[in-house]
Amino acid sequence: MDEVNFIFEPRTVLLIGSSKMREKVGMASPQLFNNVTNNMRKYYSGKTLVFDTHRKGHKADLMQVGENADLAIIMLPAKESIPICEECAKIGIRALLIITGGYTEDQRAKLLGIKRKYKTRILGPNTIMGVINTSNGLNTTFEKNIMPKKGNIAVISQSGGVGAYLLDWACFFEVGISKFCFVGDKIDINDVELLRYLGRDDQTGVICIYVEGIKDGRNFIEEARKISKIKPILVLKGGITQESAHRAKSHTASIAGSDAIFDAAFKKAGMIRVENIEELMNAAVTLSKQPPMQGDNVAIVSNVGGPAILAADAVSRNCLALASLSKETKRKIENRYPGVDATNPIDMIADAKGERYSEVLSLVLADKNVDGVMIINMLKSTFFEPKDAKVIPKVASKYPNKPVVDVPAGGEDFVKLHRVLGKTSVPLFNLPEKAARALKVLRIYSQIVKKH
Amino acid sequence: MDEVNFIFEPRTVLLIGSSKMREKVGMASPQLFNNVTNNMRKYYSGKTLVFDTHRKGHKADLMQVGENADLAIIMLPAKESIPICEECAKIGIRALLIITGGYTEDQRAKLLGIKRKYKTRILGPNTIMGVINTSNGLNTTFEKNIMPKKGNIAVISQSGGVGAYLLDWACFFEVGISKFCFVGDKIDINDVELLRYLGRDDQTGVICIYVEGIKDGRNFIEEARKISKIKPILVLKGGITQESAHRAKSHTASIAGSDAIFDAAFKKAGMIRVENIEELMNAAVTLSKQPPMQGDNVAIVSNVGGPAILAADAVSRNCLALASLSKETKRKIENRYPGVDATNPIDMIADAKGERYSEVLSLVLADKNVDGVMIINMLKSTFFEPKDAKVIPKVASKYPNKPVVDVPAGGEDFVKLHRVLGKTSVPLFNLPEKAARALKVLRIYSQIVKKH
Repeated sequence: MDEVNFIFEPRTVLLIGSSKMREKVGMASPQLFNNVTNNMRKYYSGKTLVFDTHRKGHKADLMQVGENADLAIIMLPAKESIPICEECAKIGIRALLIITGGYTEDQRAKLLGIKRKYKTRILGPNTIMGVINTSNGLNTTFEKNIMPKKGNIAVISQSGGVGAYLLDWACFFEVGISKFCFVGDKIDINDVELLRYLGRDDQTGVICIYVEGIKDGRNFIEEARKISKIKPILVLKGGITQESAHRAKSHTASIAGSDAIFDAAFKKAGMIRVENIEELMNAAVTLSKQPPMQGDNVAIVSNVGGPAILAADAVSRNCLALASLSKETKRKIENRYPGVDATNPIDMIADAKGERYSEVLSLVLADKNVDGVMIINMLKSTFFEPKDAKVIPKVASKYPNKPVVDVPAGGEDFVKLHRVLGKTSVPLFNLPEKAARALKVLRIYSQIVKKH
Repeated sequence: MDEVNFIFEPRTVLLIGSSKMREKVGMASPQLFNNVTNNMRKYYSGKTLVFDTHRKGHKADLMQVGENADLAIIMLPAKESIPICEECAKIGIRALLIITGGYTEDQRAKLLGIKRKYKTRILGPNTIMGVINTSNGLNTTFEKNIMPKKGNIAVISQSGGVGAYLLDWACFFEVGISKFCFVGDKIDINDVELLRYLGRDDQTGVICIYVEGIKDGRNFIEEARKISKIKPILVLKGGITQESAHRAKSHTASIAGSDAIFDAAFKKAGMIRVENIEELMNAAVTLSKQPPMQGDNVAIVSNVGGPAILAADAVSRNCLALASLSKETKRKIENRYPGVDATNPIDMIADAKGERYSEVLSLVLADKNVDGVMIINMLKSTFFEPKDAKVIPKVASKYPNKPVVDVPAGGEDFVKLHRVLGKTSVPLFNLPEKAARALKVLRIYSQIVKKH
């Protein structure tokens, strides 16, 4: 068994912190210790043991408390954590997940010494929020009552802040998550091993990575190259300029190379690069719900004119093409719905309800000139009602090789449509531009699968 | 008095529709008539008269009902509307706002004939939602209970759908609106006159325009050029490609030229071009709340590392610069908060609360090397609480010539911070990239004001 498994799938977890010690820079505090303990008790389906180094009344004995644990979660200040880490290793705990930060070079060296001597693996230090596994409820974050919905998207974040940002996004928009991993300073377990683990993980279908720098770049690329044939890997890179790269270096002690080098490496590895957190989450949801797009030709099916034009612009900006519908498809649509001009982007007019969406979407998806569809369904200024949207995933499921994405207007309309479509296979976006970008990602992934 | 005034500031409005007639393509229906009537009764502070062409019991007499009206809202099918429009003109109604669409060339010519004969001005046809004026409550939309918050942003939309999209966005995110105008087919009142009206309108501080094509381009550019010195004009153009431009032509009967020509014209006019609806709304809110940015140098003040690095990347991508803080500023921050490295982007560490935000933001805004500030305040993974954000608008108001924008994480955190900061002068964004773009717009506007 790969030792990284113990990080995500331990049988028994030992939580180690102090009900007294507080250390600002490294984030150690009784409150953090308490919150993590509460989250573990609330969500984790395995066994949780707790070791408080400052427990009142009697001196605690780590060996007695933790001898059956295979993973220890360390929430102590750097200095105090070193002897405790060694004790953990001595009693046979297989992996250490170090939440706290602020370790000096010397302290890191000591941690690595422990690893070498006892073969105990280390994630961190400075992971801040540690890991989440939605399958077994493992949750070492210190945010109260935070647990993302179960799903097949895995996230690896080098930064605690960016990880927390992604977690906030995933929880709020109900993005389905398999694993969440805050890697921190990566003194031992690195991106390569995490990637390999997620590549083999049956619960994971899409992998998202936030990196500032990569250690062991050659192996990382090799591993990613193998995995990206089977499941898509999305990457967001922080520190693209000299100045921000300098800050990244001091932030997570990683060696940041030139951005162009990273870009070439990601391409070689079959990874899909995104530009920001929203795009990362949107792309992940789309890849987890919809098939790769086998060609460039997008049809737009809308109940309003202007937003359909903006959608067509966005398709062009993403170097995709507006599909030329076959004469047959056009004829069928126009015969059935007099007044509708079935030129792509198709404006089905403001009185289109579920029936018209269903019919036109079916005809368009059946057209061999169409590789994917963007639907626009405005509520305001039209007769469309949220329940009319129920036909969309039904029709889409009949054409499993052609992606369908949906765009309601961006405010109240989005919230209303999200209630109807949020849990279905059709991803929702609050702007045509975001939907076009999502289709582009599906196109890129089909090319990656073919090429590699 | 400019006749366009009657469109936005009538004393007495006559609503004309039919409780029987329904016509699909043009959107005429008893329901639409009823909804507009309800909205006008609910919101409008002036006098509302109603004329139903199919009122039961007795033949209605337009002259009796409407003789004191100065604006008529036409909600009849094209054919039936022509004689009614002429009657309105005859009895001295100064302006007609035609909601319904589907007019033939011949019918449009007849409307223009009425205009010439009686000097009655016409907005539309095919305006779909007509106008909103938040000062007097005029609201000719047919959406139930939709009224944006009062503010100083005006919107002109050539497309009903895009207008409805913007309205949905504005209502949901509580964007302060002065006037909302759906221009439709523009057979008479055109962009030039609307722009002139909004340029003079005291309630309007920022003008947003969605266009697919422009009539009378030379005058439009001239008018915009004059206004953009005094208030910013944002423009979103639909139909940037050959294909989508073709669709735009059939959609609102406008002549769409090459996109590069539009781009040059907008620049010449001092208009700021945006790429999508979200950017349009974000830019408008930012310009309505914050001063133009007088230089390129942005400081980032954050309680987390990773998102601050992404923010620095976004600053670079927008061709702005990371400010080099003076030695004095750095020394003061680092002396006061040991452990904080005051290199821009400044990571104030996860335990920063209101006090530290207040102190560091003051020092940074006082630094002559800084032209504007992006604040990042994550809640998750930190000790920051929503109420801590109250210091931000307070400190920002002491430096009225330097813009400050704020970025919480994008999901639940955003909602929580929006409750605290939404009504203040500090605009909020759910991604550093959007905040950087907003600062760029403030920079562009300061250059427009200087140049013209």
